[in-house]
Amino acid sequence: MSDLPKFVEIHEEGPREGFQIEPGPIPTANKIKLIEALSDTGLHHIQACSFVNTRLVPGWADAEAVIEGFKPRAGVTYTGLFFNGNGLDRALAFRGKLTVTGAISLTASEGFTQKNLHRTHQENVEAMKKHSAFQLSKGVPVNRIGVMAAFGCNYQGDITPADVVRTLRDGMAIAEETGAKIEIFSLADTMGWAIPPRIERTIGAVREKWPDMPIALHLHDTRGMAVANAHSAIKLGIAQFDSTVGGLGGCPFAGQPKAAGNICTEELVLLCEEMGIETGVDLDNLIEVGRLAEEIVGHQLPSELIHAGSLDAFRRKAA
Amino acid sequence: MSDLPKFVEIHEEGPREGFQIEPGPIPTANKIKLIEALSDTGLHHIQACSFVNTRLVPGWADAEAVIEGFKPRAGVTYTGLFFNGNGLDRALAFRGKLTVTGAISLTASEGFTQKNLHRTHQENVEAMKKHSAFQLSKGVPVNRIGVMAAFGCNYQGDITPADVVRTLRDGMAIAEETGAKIEIFSLADTMGWAIPPRIERTIGAVREKWPDMPIALHLHDTRGMAVANAHSAIKLGIAQFDSTVGGLGGCPFAGQPKAAGNICTEELVLLCEEMGIETGVDLDNLIEVGRLAEEIVGHQLPSELIHAGSLDAFRRKAA
Repeated sequence: MSDLPKFVEIHEEGPREGFQIEPGPIPTANKIKLIEALSDTGLHHIQACSFVNTRLVPGWADAEAVIEGFKPRAGVTYTGLFFNGNGLDRALAFRGKLTVTGAISLTASEGFTQKNLHRTHQENVEAMKKHSAFQLSKGVPVNRIGVMAAFGCNYQGDITPADVVRTLRDGMAIAEETGAKIEIFSLADTMGWAIPPRIERTIGAVREKWPDMPIALHLHDTRGMAVANAHSAIKLGIAQFDSTVGGLGGCPFAGQPKAAGNICTEELVLLCEEMGIETGVDLDNLIEVGRLAEEIVGHQLPSELIHAGSLDAFRRKAA
Repeated sequence: MSDLPKFVEIHEEGPREGFQIEPGPIPTANKIKLIEALSDTGLHHIQACSFVNTRLVPGWADAEAVIEGFKPRAGVTYTGLFFNGNGLDRALAFRGKLTVTGAISLTASEGFTQKNLHRTHQENVEAMKKHSAFQLSKGVPVNRIGVMAAFGCNYQGDITPADVVRTLRDGMAIAEETGAKIEIFSLADTMGWAIPPRIERTIGAVREKWPDMPIALHLHDTRGMAVANAHSAIKLGIAQFDSTVGGLGGCPFAGQPKAAGNICTEELVLLCEEMGIETGVDLDNLIEVGRLAEEIVGHQLPSELIHAGSLDAFRRKAA
C-alpha cells in the first residue's frame, strides 16, 4: 500500500512566469516557439501568457499577439493569468483557444498583500468578493482558491499553518457568498520559505479542516528546497504542481531580483518518473525545450537537469 | 520520538572540489582566503586541497603552497584528499596542520572504475589492499570505506543496493586482511543518480548487513535532487554529509562538463536549521563566504541560497 499518487498533473507556467521577469524584450515569435515546443512534450496544461497591467509587467505587453499566434495542440489546455476584470475580458476574447477558469486569490501574509497589492487583507477580501461575482457573471467558473505566501514572507516572516487555514476560510466565505463552487486549493510558496516539515504541517492543517479538498502546490526554488518540498508533498498524496521549464521565472515583486525561479518542470518530472509516478511528459523532449528556453532568454537557467541530461539518456548509452 | 539526528556533521569540500574543476588558474592567495573564511563560519571539517596527480588536476598544482599559507583555526579539522602513496606522503608532510586519515576507496560501478581508474574492480581491490597496508604502515588510521557511483553511473547505468553491499563487502575484506578498523561508510552519488527512494533503499540494504555502522553521504546536485536526497537521509538518521559552499565543484571525470557540483553547504545548513537540527554553522556568515567563492571563481555558482539570502535575515528585517 502506498499514499503515492499514480499520476502527477503538472501545470507548466514557464512562458508566463519566465517572460514576465526577463529584463530584455523577448520577441513574440520566440514566446510562440516555446509554447508550441512545450505543447509537444506531453504536458497537458500550459499557462501561455499573463493578462496583467502592461505598465507593471511590460514583458507581457504582447499577450494578445502571442495567443493569436501559437498553434494549439489537441489535448492541451492553454490558460492566461489574470487578476482583475480587465484581465478577464482580455482572456475571454480568446475563449475556446484559452480555457478560462476563475479563482479567488488571497495572500496569507498581510505584509505581502500591502506591499504587492497596496491593500489590507480585509480590502483584498472585499475586492475578491467583487471579482468572484464578476467572473461568475461572465459565465466563468470560479473553482480555485489560491493562497500566496503560504509558507513564509520576506516582508512578514514566518506564516503558520493556522494563517493558511484562516486565509482559506476567508476564501471559502467569499465562495459561499458569491456562489462559487471550489474544487481545489492552490498554495503558493511565493518567496521560497517552504521546507519539507512546513509543507507537511501545512498540508496536514488544511486537510484537517477540509479532508476531501485536493491541494495543488506552486513552489519556488528560491533557496534550493523546491524538489525536496515536492517530494514531501507527493509522499502525502499531493498530485498537482505548477512548475516552469528550465526553472524560468522568479517573483518580480518579492524584492529578490537575483532569486531563482519556480521548481523546474524537468526536475519534477524526473523525480516522479524515478518514483514510478506518471506525468505524461517525455523527459528527454522536455529537456530539449529547457535548452531552447535558455537560448531564448540568453542566460543560464537554474535547472541542473537541462545541463546534465536525463538518467534514461545515460541508461540507453550504457545498455 | 524522532529518528532525526540532533546534530549533522558537515565536511566542507568547497576548496578541494571547487578548485579542481575551475578552468582558469585560481590564485593561491584566493584559495587561502576561502579556506580561512570557511574556518570562521563554525564548520568543523574542511577539506582544504587535493594531493592528486598535478598533471591530471592542474588546478591543485599549488596544494603545498595553499596548506603552508593558510592560518588554521583551533577546533577545525583540515584535510587533504589523496588516493595513492605519493599523495599520502605529500599530506603527511603537513601532519599536525592537516589531519591525515586513510580510506579504502572503491567504486560500485565497474564501468566507472575502468573509465576513471583504468582498472577493473578486481584490480582496484588489489590496489586498495596495498594502499590500505601502506597507509597503516605510515601510522595513518584507515577508518573509512568510500564507495563512488553508489547510486548510478553515467557509463554503466543503474547501481543497485546489492551492488553497493557487494562493494562494501569487498572493502570490509580488504580491511580485515590489512588490519584496518572501519568506523564509517561513505556513499558517493558521484554522477547525480540518486533519488530519495533510492537513497532509502540503499541505506536500508547497507544497514541490514551492518546495522551499527554510521553512513556518510557525498551528494552531487547534478540533476537537482541533492537537497531532497539529503532530507530523506536525515529522516533516516544519517548525520554526516560532504558538501561544498556555493555548490562549488562537479566531477571532472564524469563526462558532464556543465553539470552542477556538490550539494550546497548553505542549503544543507538551512534544511537542518529549519528541521531543528544543529550544524554549528552560522548560516548568514556562510552565505557571505558563498558569495566570496562566487567572486573568486568569477561566475555564478549553482547555490540558490547565496542569491536569495537566509530566512533568518528576512525574519530579522520583518520583526
